[in-house]
Amino acid sequence: MIRLFVPAGLGPNTGVALGAEQSHYLTKVMRKGVGESLALFNGRDGEWRAQIAAAGKRDVLLTVVEKLRDQTAPCDLELIVAAVKRTRLETIVEKAAELGAARVRLVLTARTNAERVRVERLNVIAVEAAEQTGRLDVPTVQDPVKLAKLLDAWDPARRLLFCDEGGDAKPILSAVTPGPWAILIGPEGGFSPEERGRLRSLPFVTPATLGPRILRADTAAISALTLWQAAAGDWR
Amino acid sequence: MIRLFVPAGLGPNTGVALGAEQSHYLTKVMRKGVGESLALFNGRDGEWRAQIAAAGKRDVLLTVVEKLRDQTAPCDLELIVAAVKRTRLETIVEKAAELGAARVRLVLTARTNAERVRVERLNVIAVEAAEQTGRLDVPTVQDPVKLAKLLDAWDPARRLLFCDEGGDAKPILSAVTPGPWAILIGPEGGFSPEERGRLRSLPFVTPATLGPRILRADTAAISALTLWQAAAGDWR
Repeated sequence: MIRLFVPAGLGPNTGVALGAEQSHYLTKVMRKGVGESLALFNGRDGEWRAQIAAAGKRDVLLTVVEKLRDQTAPCDLELIVAAVKRTRLETIVEKAAELGAARVRLVLTARTNAERVRVERLNVIAVEAAEQTGRLDVPTVQDPVKLAKLLDAWDPARRLLFCDEGGDAKPILSAVTPGPWAILIGPEGGFSPEERGRLRSLPFVTPATLGPRILRADTAAISALTLWQAAAGDWR
Repeated sequence: MIRLFVPAGLGPNTGVALGAEQSHYLTKVMRKGVGESLALFNGRDGEWRAQIAAAGKRDVLLTVVEKLRDQTAPCDLELIVAAVKRTRLETIVEKAAELGAARVRLVLTARTNAERVRVERLNVIAVEAAEQTGRLDVPTVQDPVKLAKLLDAWDPARRLLFCDEGGDAKPILSAVTPGPWAILIGPEGGFSPEERGRLRSLPFVTPATLGPRILRADTAAISALTLWQAAAGDWR
């Protein structure tokens, strides 16, 4: 069944008007017509079956029929990733949505190339991936901030998994404990010695290793999210 | 240091002539000249430091200087993946190289689109990823075969991790045991009921789950390789 994320409130017999893009997708790309069903979610009210009540080219009206699943809280997991190259960043956001991250935060580090990040486009990718992966919320992608500023304002109740290249760090499976976490993935060139020194000195940081080979940023992000889910998340 | 995979034998004072593409990469893209060092590996003789002895536009000569690392056996892990869409297949091969798979085998399943697979191009991607990830061998990508034929000829000494969608399968971390394994990743549309039935009936098959969300084939491959490495491979 097709799943769409909508901002509207969802409840029995609610009407939902889709915007031009979702209307086009539903009627032209997926060729759905009046009377056919799809699933809706909005991140708050669970997942609902809805029927197409009227189908114009750019203007589809839906009627919400019945609840399919109750809303559940997402894993309390953030992904913090250096603003790497556009295609890899898009992959990372898609995979963060599939792997259950609640939020993606972008950071600028000493070795980040200051290429403009299209945060709006990344949020569209997050919505599409959330629709396809079957989750009941959409991870938000936030504007880039400097790593130093992010660490200055850090809530120490949230552990930060520092995916360090090499060194003496522990495997993620044995480093992770229950509770709220964030995973930090550096740029392709790695963190600078100063950044690594500061990260390793902070009490809320847990360094962890991702094996003996050098991983690209997208691989590191996917592997770290997977291991966190297996050790502390909803893959147990 | 730049790393290049070469077919030639490597030993002290050996001369190695690079082909046109690697010569161009070294002198024009990376702007290296006579006297500069790089690392060579061939999958048999370990990793060696070599120096540029002569640098023509399409014709670089290297002299092997000293051994940097002894050859080690790769993890005895195969990735078997349905021939999915080209870009996702390229991602999967790149990631299989980074995550230490020894071989990638492509399979045709009931729901595989029979788009032509460019195996030669996939092998080039495997070489480049092996060079960058720092491994001492290159995973080979083999021509597509039908799933039924692959299973008919299966060596039962190798366990097959069947990454099943949903069902009652165990998490990979608790499903994997020591020894040779292969990981099987299906097409985007999943395996057919007949394929799932046969796979689940085979004594060398272990079904395993990849969490509660629907994963794309590339995500499933990366997550499964990661968890295998963490449970039974060289990430422990």
